[in-house]
Amino acid sequence: MRTSIATVSLSGSLTEKLTAASRAGFDGVEIFENDLLASPLAPEEIRVRCADLGLRIELYQPMRDIEAVPAAEFARNLRRARHKFELMGRLGADTVLVCSSVCPSAVDDDALAAAQLSELADLAQDFGIRVAYEALAWGRHVSTYDHAWRIVETAGHPALGTCLDSFHILSRGGDPEGLEDIPGEKIFFLQLADAPQLAMDVLQWSRHYRCFPGQGGFDVAGLVRHVLRTGYDGPLSLEVFNDVFRQAEAGPTAVDAHRSLLLLQEAVGVADLPAPVVPTGIAFAELLTPDAEPVAAVLDALGFARTARHHGKPVDLWQQGEARILVNTAGAARRDGTQLAAIGLESPDPAAAAHRAEALLAPVLPRRRDPHDAPLDAVAAPDGTELFFCATGHPELPDWRADFDSLGTGRPQTGVTSVDHLALTQPWHHFDEAALFHRSVFGLDARESVDVADPYGLLRSRAVGNTDGSVRIVLSVGAAPTDDTVHAQHIALATDDVVAAAGRFRAAGGRLLRIPANYYDDLAARFELPEEELAAYRDLGILYDRDAGGAFRHCYTETVGRVFFELVQRDPGHRGYGAPNASVRLAAQHAQRPAR
Amino acid sequence: MRTSIATVSLSGSLTEKLTAASRAGFDGVEIFENDLLASPLAPEEIRVRCADLGLRIELYQPMRDIEAVPAAEFARNLRRARHKFELMGRLGADTVLVCSSVCPSAVDDDALAAAQLSELADLAQDFGIRVAYEALAWGRHVSTYDHAWRIVETAGHPALGTCLDSFHILSRGGDPEGLEDIPGEKIFFLQLADAPQLAMDVLQWSRHYRCFPGQGGFDVAGLVRHVLRTGYDGPLSLEVFNDVFRQAEAGPTAVDAHRSLLLLQEAVGVADLPAPVVPTGIAFAELLTPDAEPVAAVLDALGFARTARHHGKPVDLWQQGEARILVNTAGAARRDGTQLAAIGLESPDPAAAAHRAEALLAPVLPRRRDPHDAPLDAVAAPDGTELFFCATGHPELPDWRADFDSLGTGRPQTGVTSVDHLALTQPWHHFDEAALFHRSVFGLDARESVDVADPYGLLRSRAVGNTDGSVRIVLSVGAAPTDDTVHAQHIALATDDVVAAAGRFRAAGGRLLRIPANYYDDLAARFELPEEELAAYRDLGILYDRDAGGAFRHCYTETVGRVFFELVQRDPGHRGYGAPNASVRLAAQHAQRPAR
Repeated sequence: MRTSIATVSLSGSLTEKLTAASRAGFDGVEIFENDLLASPLAPEEIRVRCADLGLRIELYQPMRDIEAVPAAEFARNLRRARHKFELMGRLGADTVLVCSSVCPSAVDDDALAAAQLSELADLAQDFGIRVAYEALAWGRHVSTYDHAWRIVETAGHPALGTCLDSFHILSRGGDPEGLEDIPGEKIFFLQLADAPQLAMDVLQWSRHYRCFPGQGGFDVAGLVRHVLRTGYDGPLSLEVFNDVFRQAEAGPTAVDAHRSLLLLQEAVGVADLPAPVVPTGIAFAELLTPDAEPVAAVLDALGFARTARHHGKPVDLWQQGEARILVNTAGAARRDGTQLAAIGLESPDPAAAAHRAEALLAPVLPRRRDPHDAPLDAVAAPDGTELFFCATGHPELPDWRADFDSLGTGRPQTGVTSVDHLALTQPWHHFDEAALFHRSVFGLDARESVDVADPYGLLRSRAVGNTDGSVRIVLSVGAAPTDDTVHAQHIALATDDVVAAAGRFRAAGGRLLRIPANYYDDLAARFELPEEELAAYRDLGILYDRDAGGAFRHCYTETVGRVFFELVQRDPGHRGYGAPNASVRLAAQHAQRPAR
Repeated sequence: MRTSIATVSLSGSLTEKLTAASRAGFDGVEIFENDLLASPLAPEEIRVRCADLGLRIELYQPMRDIEAVPAAEFARNLRRARHKFELMGRLGADTVLVCSSVCPSAVDDDALAAAQLSELADLAQDFGIRVAYEALAWGRHVSTYDHAWRIVETAGHPALGTCLDSFHILSRGGDPEGLEDIPGEKIFFLQLADAPQLAMDVLQWSRHYRCFPGQGGFDVAGLVRHVLRTGYDGPLSLEVFNDVFRQAEAGPTAVDAHRSLLLLQEAVGVADLPAPVVPTGIAFAELLTPDAEPVAAVLDALGFARTARHHGKPVDLWQQGEARILVNTAGAARRDGTQLAAIGLESPDPAAAAHRAEALLAPVLPRRRDPHDAPLDAVAAPDGTELFFCATGHPELPDWRADFDSLGTGRPQTGVTSVDHLALTQPWHHFDEAALFHRSVFGLDARESVDVADPYGLLRSRAVGNTDGSVRIVLSVGAAPTDDTVHAQHIALATDDVVAAAGRFRAAGGRLLRIPANYYDDLAARFELPEEELAAYRDLGILYDRDAGGAFRHCYTETVGRVFFELVQRDPGHRGYGAPNASVRLAAQHAQRPAR
């Protein structure tokens, strides 16, 4: 099916929007009137620009407050419409969106509405234009798709059809099954948007909180299935207004948008994407650093041993249990400090996993390798993190460790068993994109988003992971684009005994994040913990949480560059990440951050 | 009355919050438990810090999910409460807030709730502590103030009273008149918050959108009047959670907060503030610039004449009609460019106006003047703009113009008659503060806030003005703290013939903002304007709007530094500022901005 996006969904000038839509692979666009008005390009120039970019102009939108009004007003509306039809001719657009009226002078008279829309369609037909009539959820008299369709049916005009919009239908809790009663050829257009389930005024909800399909709480795929059963063969077009997208760069937003439409097509069975290959573990986490020494000191104190070195690059492999950390000193600028730059995901079929990622518009990274290196596919996540597809210890597949030469160094300690989770800071404008990316590209499950109170703003955090918990990634985003959320990027290491592991770390010279004594007084009030256990937590700065599945004990190292480490003792059934303790941890990190 | 603020209302560490509250003049604070938990200070140290800062600890808050639960659970709750009462003893807090239960195990049994709260109050009494029970608007069984009061009344315990919160009462549309039925001595605490009228889930509304009294849509003063009639003599305490305040600097937020409480006390008749002195005109607008030449060129082309120079400072007076613009080359850093730095407001009583501003916590500016200068009081607005109180041409009062020596230069043109309005860019975190400041300090009326679509995010804009329109100030704020909203700062000049004025400006070498031709095609569709009128608008870049009161025609000059000028022809009845044209104007300014 053809894909399309309304220009109002993207930020910038009209030409920026068109360029972004084309680059992201859309087949067409809806031209939003205000974008055209604000453009210095003449309609003919816009037409040429779209053609050059391979974009079809699927819709011109919107015309408002046309129908069911007194005759004199309708005459003025027809005059206005004639101007717009002339414009559409210059633009090369053949379908116009007419929204159900919200004006106070509109009357509740379906026959009048049908007659006037029919007259409008007569005029449109003279210009070779089709009119797509849509029920706004807050329309004055017409606010449901079946009502709009009844009026269109009554009018019975070949140039008049209906436009369906998933937001307007699903926000009112409408039953989309009735869509199948509309003949497909009378559905002139289909606009798609998702939205979080919010109990709020529908107009504000629509204007500020729409999102791309799969990022909200609506069953957009279910609705599209009903529409496709009618025989509808027009484009799937996104119309999403959202305060965040308005501020974001158009390019990445368009990619996010197109990815959501690909997934929607997969969900309704009209797209043929490679199936997801769910990762089965964390092969490694890679730190990029201008200076390996501070990181090495922390890893050493944590009980890691430097076991191998890449044969052709300045990359060391540190290991303890199944936890592997690469320390890469190639390319990091000093001002960025140490950062979590890449993740190796264990994959049952690395090639197929990379193939799906590429099909879902993930940028494929150049392999930058010597002829001797093991082939290793990688893509970039929306936050720029490099994701490698690995098959560690599978004899039939290339092993990334083959590129490393053993250093024959001493055995690591055994306090850390594996990586419990990785926490990545997301760019402010692309938090929802990140969650959808990890879900769709890797088939990971996403947990609910939680708010965490930092002393200087609310953070949002959302975990994605596989079923057995061997892959867990926590995505966090700050309160504002300016936010310094570096404190959220970390590697959480699993241990069977956090008290012992933290004690060893401190004895080896490691510095643990200090947690205020008041926190432990509160812990004593909330939980009946044995006195000596509480004393050990208090001494080491260990935080505690509990859910129905058991306890979660965790503590934090100092921060190196933009990265810190967490030691985690997770009861097998515990599903959390210490969110109730996050505000105490964040306050402690703010307080103990070196002065800048 | 004593004033107080909950620490959760301010950003930062607990000590930052306490310092900000003290500096802004609050008498006390509510200590929010999470702020204490995250603080490295022991409770005894917090007690001393508060005493040093002159702050009384009015409340410790909150305790949750205490009452109407099975016996075993209540026993655990009492254990938890004992810990907290011990803590409060160390802290020196004698009142604790208990919120009505939201936990699933709570039962709908008022007698049980009363009995358990009574038992809790017994324990509290042993520690010299009072329990203030509050109905959360989303409480599981108790969600209204009268229900909470009935339970407190049933319990009949001297250490148990109720806490009232204006948000919880007014968000549910509760009738505050019934508050007068509660004996004042049983109202242990009064928490105040306002909120915009939003149709949304009350929990989200409460957590993210509360604001200070006078900044929302609730009749907080009306509620307080009812409470005061009961004989309540505790503090007026602000408890406001808001996503914006969480990110803002605590210092200015605390000042904004305390100003709102002063106004509330004035509204209910318990504070004695100097009465507002409404300004009667714009005496001057002052531009601060590192280089007067580019500004002078624009002013010259606009028809202004440089008529006088300050006798002791590098400040020129440019004049045309009643519009006076000061160009000040003292002190502006080059990188800031030209900015609108000060406004002279005509005042019937400058001394009284300054007195009120000072009483409402506006920073009074040092007079920086020679002994020969006319005395001129000034305060700083929240955005840093200096506001001078002037009496131009009043023989009995000092005239600021006496400090200027006439240059005897040629007469200005007469196309511009006065200043129509001034537009000021607001710091992102203090938009609501700015509106309240201008309303309360100067007695100006505030219009509704409007959203304007900039190509890179939604701007918000709100006008304040006096009744006859001789003072109009438009406050604008960008979509995000990072936003470059410099394009919003401007001086709008009134003219009786904008076509003539714009033509003269262009003929004199001035550069007008170019408006896309598509805009004029749309104007032709929407309004039946005479062909030659439309042609003139199209030629000069004049924008057009109309409301019930008449037409509004306006155009813009190029931007100099951070400032541009607007020429405005306003029909006497028109009340707008061209908001429907703002997105076209903003897009044109983005497109024509010099590359950086």
